[in-house]
Amino acid sequence: MCGIVGFIGREQAAPILLDGLARLEYRGYDSAGVAVYSEKNHALTVRKAKGRLQVLSDLIQGGAAVDGTVGIGHTRWATHGAPSDANSHPQVSQNGKIAVVHNGIIENYVELKQFLISNGVTFTSDTDTEVVAQLIEYFYQGDILEAVGRVLRRIEGAYALGILCADFPDQLIAVRKDSPLILGYGDGCNFLASDVTAIIRHTRKVGYMEDGEVAVLTRDGIQCYNHLMQPIEKKISQVDWEIDAAEKGGYEHFMFKEIMEQPEALRRCIFPRIKDNQVYFEDFGLSEDYIRSISKIYIVACGSSYHVGMVGKYNIERLTRKPVEVALASEFRYMSPIVDENTLVVAISQSGETLDTMAALREAKRLGAKVLSIVNVVGSSIARESDEVLYTWAGPEIAVATTKAYSTQMAVIDLLALYFARILGTVEQTEYETVLQEMLLLPGKMETILSHTDTVQYLASQYFNHDSVFFIGRNVDYALGLEGSLKLKEISYIHSEAYASGELKHGTISLIENGTLVVALGTYSKLFDKAMSNVVEVKARGADVLALTTQSHRDEMAQTANAVMTIPDTHDLLLPSLGVVPLQLFAYYVALMRGCDIDKPRNLAKSVTVE
Amino acid sequence: MCGIVGFIGREQAAPILLDGLARLEYRGYDSAGVAVYSEKNHALTVRKAKGRLQVLSDLIQGGAAVDGTVGIGHTRWATHGAPSDANSHPQVSQNGKIAVVHNGIIENYVELKQFLISNGVTFTSDTDTEVVAQLIEYFYQGDILEAVGRVLRRIEGAYALGILCADFPDQLIAVRKDSPLILGYGDGCNFLASDVTAIIRHTRKVGYMEDGEVAVLTRDGIQCYNHLMQPIEKKISQVDWEIDAAEKGGYEHFMFKEIMEQPEALRRCIFPRIKDNQVYFEDFGLSEDYIRSISKIYIVACGSSYHVGMVGKYNIERLTRKPVEVALASEFRYMSPIVDENTLVVAISQSGETLDTMAALREAKRLGAKVLSIVNVVGSSIARESDEVLYTWAGPEIAVATTKAYSTQMAVIDLLALYFARILGTVEQTEYETVLQEMLLLPGKMETILSHTDTVQYLASQYFNHDSVFFIGRNVDYALGLEGSLKLKEISYIHSEAYASGELKHGTISLIENGTLVVALGTYSKLFDKAMSNVVEVKARGADVLALTTQSHRDEMAQTANAVMTIPDTHDLLLPSLGVVPLQLFAYYVALMRGCDIDKPRNLAKSVTVE
Repeated sequence: MCGIVGFIGREQAAPILLDGLARLEYRGYDSAGVAVYSEKNHALTVRKAKGRLQVLSDLIQGGAAVDGTVGIGHTRWATHGAPSDANSHPQVSQNGKIAVVHNGIIENYVELKQFLISNGVTFTSDTDTEVVAQLIEYFYQGDILEAVGRVLRRIEGAYALGILCADFPDQLIAVRKDSPLILGYGDGCNFLASDVTAIIRHTRKVGYMEDGEVAVLTRDGIQCYNHLMQPIEKKISQVDWEIDAAEKGGYEHFMFKEIMEQPEALRRCIFPRIKDNQVYFEDFGLSEDYIRSISKIYIVACGSSYHVGMVGKYNIERLTRKPVEVALASEFRYMSPIVDENTLVVAISQSGETLDTMAALREAKRLGAKVLSIVNVVGSSIARESDEVLYTWAGPEIAVATTKAYSTQMAVIDLLALYFARILGTVEQTEYETVLQEMLLLPGKMETILSHTDTVQYLASQYFNHDSVFFIGRNVDYALGLEGSLKLKEISYIHSEAYASGELKHGTISLIENGTLVVALGTYSKLFDKAMSNVVEVKARGADVLALTTQSHRDEMAQTANAVMTIPDTHDLLLPSLGVVPLQLFAYYVALMRGCDIDKPRNLAKSVTVE
Repeated sequence: MCGIVGFIGREQAAPILLDGLARLEYRGYDSAGVAVYSEKNHALTVRKAKGRLQVLSDLIQGGAAVDGTVGIGHTRWATHGAPSDANSHPQVSQNGKIAVVHNGIIENYVELKQFLISNGVTFTSDTDTEVVAQLIEYFYQGDILEAVGRVLRRIEGAYALGILCADFPDQLIAVRKDSPLILGYGDGCNFLASDVTAIIRHTRKVGYMEDGEVAVLTRDGIQCYNHLMQPIEKKISQVDWEIDAAEKGGYEHFMFKEIMEQPEALRRCIFPRIKDNQVYFEDFGLSEDYIRSISKIYIVACGSSYHVGMVGKYNIERLTRKPVEVALASEFRYMSPIVDENTLVVAISQSGETLDTMAALREAKRLGAKVLSIVNVVGSSIARESDEVLYTWAGPEIAVATTKAYSTQMAVIDLLALYFARILGTVEQTEYETVLQEMLLLPGKMETILSHTDTVQYLASQYFNHDSVFFIGRNVDYALGLEGSLKLKEISYIHSEAYASGELKHGTISLIENGTLVVALGTYSKLFDKAMSNVVEVKARGADVLALTTQSHRDEMAQTANAVMTIPDTHDLLLPSLGVVPLQLFAYYVALMRGCDIDKPRNLAKSVTVE
């Protein structure tokens, strides 16, 4: 979950590394560091600092204080060892000549560390990464690439590595297994980075490293090797989005910018996929025969993507009558799931690098299932390893709390459900067309909601000081509540929890007392009366009820709830797509009023690429 | 979720009604009341009070202040209208002649109330129940039974009713639809009650009312009618447990008593079902052919029973390789589930009266599935409407927070999984026998845990003042965490939440700061290393970690966690059966130290017989 960056060229490296790290800070911000080869001292200069990147930047005067034209940098999300200067990266070997930045986890590091200690090596940190640096030094006999090769045969786990050796100041080494790493091809300079945003300012030509590959970067070229260290050709891709897309563009926070971008993201995601009143997937590889043969659909995902999966289960089952099971990827991979060649596994991930989802995908393939992934980042690991991909086309998402990725994933799931249903003949033509027409109206309806952010801001000002909040709902409103609760929790640090309304009476209602905030979701019209009953019930225990419902139920709800947020009416299947927007805004404003660091919440990182 | 009781005989009614209500108080305790016909005044005496039963009892001097030998009583769990004197039951009609006690919800009460108001009736409460009393008066033309019959054709919803009319002081009327109601046959006296505990002191002869039935109780007999008001014969059953079983027997709380009874309850539940190294179910109606034909198992339940279902999914899938889906009953009934004649639905409920579970069962049967129920209360509605029942034989459970019902439900699920697996040939004989042998050892191992309650009490004293707690675990430890968290939450009012460990990094970890209490469950040995990684991770963010693991992993866990609770080693499948005990004790002691009302937590009731 850390971010790594590397540069080799003719300009001063440190400012470029800091700029790259600034764009990767969403991946972790417990500490940061750089290692640069100094031509003056003929040695590595290593500077590290606990805390935000700004601390490091101040320490080295924005990079000006560190000379040299080749270096590596790191921004950390702590896994092994608490955040501290010593545990920051780069980690350096005993003789100070080999520096390593690492994203991932070395699983057998304890054993390797004991081996090195018994051979007289002294460690200065608690990290698994230091083991890599020390082990390279241990094997090093004059050929750094050969030493790296020997280390790779001994370490287990997930890693993207950037390696710099003082004896080879004209090269950088990059290694990748199960953690993302891309190469950037510049003009007289080259780059490595955890993702494209870190280098797009300098080049749009990128290469995606595959598992087991090693790359040697020099000022004038990059040579790649496969896992047997045989030279290979790497295909160079062109990145087609603008740097602005990864900048705040006048907004105070990426999260708010991304909330506001949702109508546009939905247009990009939906419009090209509806043609002549039909769902159209370009180059879609799942045949009609295959779709008919599916006996079960397994959705695997984590976090917000899992909540998309929950809505997906309701909508896919309703439209296709195929049974759908939604599993947390971290649970799926270890539960010996019942999966066979008639199972379609749908993997959902914004980054396409979520480690648990990736592992679940591999387990599913091993068991013979086909995998369809719904991914935002083009060319990411999950996209590449899936049998079929549907991209969400949301554009780069930088804020840790996902918004537009969630909305576009939901749209893709709905399109998929309709696509399947039409082939299976399980949806009536009129309903099929109505839903498609309503999907085309979603971006506009979302704009209506977003033109009244002040209403939600006012409500947030009324409720931001609660420390315990419950979201309740039934059916798709329950799935929506899970997402609304997670949004609030992750950025405002309020202990918020979502409950299926019917479960309240089996325990949670004991926590409701005078003034407890209950966010009651009642958008699903079929169960609106049941939602009202639950509102009455928690009100009877003294709760303050903030309700969310559709325009047409507003008046009825307002008679009972303390306050009501509304969304335009739409087809039942699409309610969560609109319902999530006020909840995102509510979380945003509450966090703002509590003075939280919205784009970089405590302890969290954007893509979870460790277990 | 309210409790109702009625008495007609030759002794003073009020003390008997109060005693019955005391035993029903677990069903609700927002307010209580009685209505008795006074022979002195030739009118009804109605006495009601908001708050615990004791308030009412003091008001009427333990019943001595109310004369008369026929009456009805009620203890309330508020649904419509806040707890208050006016909203307490019995509800009385305008002329003061008709008194009604009610458990359930009249769904069309708004419409009926408007009809009555437009006919000049004045209401004094916000309850749905008053509508019943007023409507009876409206239709009454000298024949009370006829008036009740007319009302029953007009009200919708769920109800158990006790009705007393001042013009008919020699009879009580009882009505049942979708809410539990039993009849008690005494010697010169007769009873109606929500459950057997209320009357067992007076008689062991009971009759179970069916939906739609009406009964007229006189001093010397009970006449039952079907929904067409045709006289029917009611079968009289004999209750075979002792009154002691429903009393505290020297313990301070029912909950503690029931925790301590678990080894004995397990012996009663397991031992008769293991014969000659095989699972043996007496008179089991599911044939081997049927079991082979099952394509999917759906477990439907609420609250703690749902958590049993979660463990059941892991264990049944592992042993039988049949796919299992666990659904909240309140969600299942409205989600148009994919269920057919090859689906086995397993309904789990302690009381056998849980309304959502009952509704799910009926929906499943309507869709053609067979229903097997796992129930504690013999003769309860769910037991009677299922195709097959496996009783848990845990004895009466009085504390609102379930303990021995959970443990015995779990044992039954495990036995069922083994029974199926043997028929399907999906378990090896040695594993089958090992698990059975280990099941026989469970009660003894549980006694080992229960002989060291002081350890858990000490830990509770260290952590009882936290206001926000997280339970984390993977696989069966996740399911166990859900139960541990619910226990803590429902009786101590601490906002506690359970998470699948792998999901922490996708949001919840942002809530972890210095001193946050994390209860880390690491009993499942296959994933012990992963559990350790998560402990390290939350420790790195400053959490206080209270771990639960097995004896053989204790030392390793103790190196990292702040404190460790242990359980004896057992077969993997059975770990949650032991693991739950320290978590029950932890919740109990924490609630005790916080001064909470353990057996009657705020807002909760034992059996959830309303939606």
